[in-house]
Amino acid sequence: MSFQGKERQGGVKQITSHANPIIKEIKGLVAQRKHRRDSGLFVAEGLKLASDALKAGWGVRYLAMGPEARENQAALDVAAKAKAQGALILEVSNAILTNLTRRDNPQMVVGVYEQKVRGLDTIDVNERKTWICLDRVRDPGNLGTIIRTGDAVGAAGVVLIGDTTDPFAVEAVRATMGSLFHMPLIRCREDEFIDWRRNWPGLVVGTHLRGTMDYREPQYKEPLLLVMGNEQAGLSDALADSCNTLVKIPQEGQADSLNLAIATAVMLFEVRRDMLQLAK
Amino acid sequence: MSFQGKERQGGVKQITSHANPIIKEIKGLVAQRKHRRDSGLFVAEGLKLASDALKAGWGVRYLAMGPEARENQAALDVAAKAKAQGALILEVSNAILTNLTRRDNPQMVVGVYEQKVRGLDTIDVNERKTWICLDRVRDPGNLGTIIRTGDAVGAAGVVLIGDTTDPFAVEAVRATMGSLFHMPLIRCREDEFIDWRRNWPGLVVGTHLRGTMDYREPQYKEPLLLVMGNEQAGLSDALADSCNTLVKIPQEGQADSLNLAIATAVMLFEVRRDMLQLAK
Repeated sequence: MSFQGKERQGGVKQITSHANPIIKEIKGLVAQRKHRRDSGLFVAEGLKLASDALKAGWGVRYLAMGPEARENQAALDVAAKAKAQGALILEVSNAILTNLTRRDNPQMVVGVYEQKVRGLDTIDVNERKTWICLDRVRDPGNLGTIIRTGDAVGAAGVVLIGDTTDPFAVEAVRATMGSLFHMPLIRCREDEFIDWRRNWPGLVVGTHLRGTMDYREPQYKEPLLLVMGNEQAGLSDALADSCNTLVKIPQEGQADSLNLAIATAVMLFEVRRDMLQLAK
Repeated sequence: MSFQGKERQGGVKQITSHANPIIKEIKGLVAQRKHRRDSGLFVAEGLKLASDALKAGWGVRYLAMGPEARENQAALDVAAKAKAQGALILEVSNAILTNLTRRDNPQMVVGVYEQKVRGLDTIDVNERKTWICLDRVRDPGNLGTIIRTGDAVGAAGVVLIGDTTDPFAVEAVRATMGSLFHMPLIRCREDEFIDWRRNWPGLVVGTHLRGTMDYREPQYKEPLLLVMGNEQAGLSDALADSCNTLVKIPQEGQADSLNLAIATAVMLFEVRRDMLQLAK
């Protein structure tokens, strides 16, 4: 998608009205997936994320700066970079910032960025890395936390399989703490994944109730696909069948299950333990 | 706190008005920490949680049943048990259920329960278990997820140190998925904790930026206190000084840090690995 409107020259605009069309557009991006899908844009809060986005080469469409940001050198530097790159800088009040993201204590900067999602064909299957593959992930907080954890363990990226929550929803973006801008995202249908996976040269490990192997047992090696199931339903049968190893994380106590982001982290750190061992 | 009002006889009441005082009271418990503190009550959604609460011997004050619950045998059984135990059963519409918990797709049962929090003096320091000790935890979702993970690994319970988020907030309760009713909660001030910890017979492990030891290095043994810092500030100096081992979880990629619930889970599964090893 391209955004070659007149604002792409970069510039500065003071906005004082909540009814301003750009403010309404940003609120639409926060509130509705449809607006994000149709425009290819999304909202991320905070100066750190704006700085991360620019460093990682993501397109910035708007940067709304509150009064504090306009007195803050780091924020002004980020705004200058964004403007040079074609962003429109919006000078707004704190009331507008609060209104934009429906937060009582808004960040001093709110940015609008261009989405980036790739296809399976962009994955280098020979790179010795782990891809986190999520079957119909539903909760935006879980997805954001998984992206953040994946970044922290040096995973290659996240593959979103089937009908998932929107990685560009504000709650998901917040939970990534900026890792969204560092972790490649792939989107595909389940049948595309299963087809593509046939040419995967390494392990394909899923966690599943059917798994008879303790998750610590396999000797993990990269390249690796780690396939995690939906929060309620777990892995679909088709995806479970496409794994060459199914493991389970045994539980004590009276909990039924682990949160998906927790289970994914436990698996990722287990893979990492084996990879560090191999590197010795 | 005791609740010896007339409702404690148990009974059934049809409620059709959003303005009913009990409905207002429940909405107050959802919306405001002050209401939860003053009443010693809290709200938990869902039939599974009502069943968990009754099995674990928690006091049920009200059970609001939507139309579907009144046609569901499992829900009727839970309601009968709750009523026998002194709860007032509220027969309400789906509109009232939605209004109660501000959810579009409400659960068919919403319960009001009596809070249970204990003091440090109730901990058996010789029991070979792990206590998860949280320094000023701020996010209700993190706290709920940590309680759930603690239950899944068989931890003894959670110690809330200093000024923390409310474990009985709806978001926290939701994230526990019922484990709230199985995991003892302790609340204390920081100075109380540091004083009490002097008589702790085992390891006191904290995660800290100052930690020079990789988290996989120590040989963990229970009884153990696992001390985790606040989401923004990490561990306070006083708490860090009170640990006998400070570890860190090394990170790759460009993430600054792990989510607190994720870091806690990584530590808990590491402890468990060593405990299972010892048991062999």
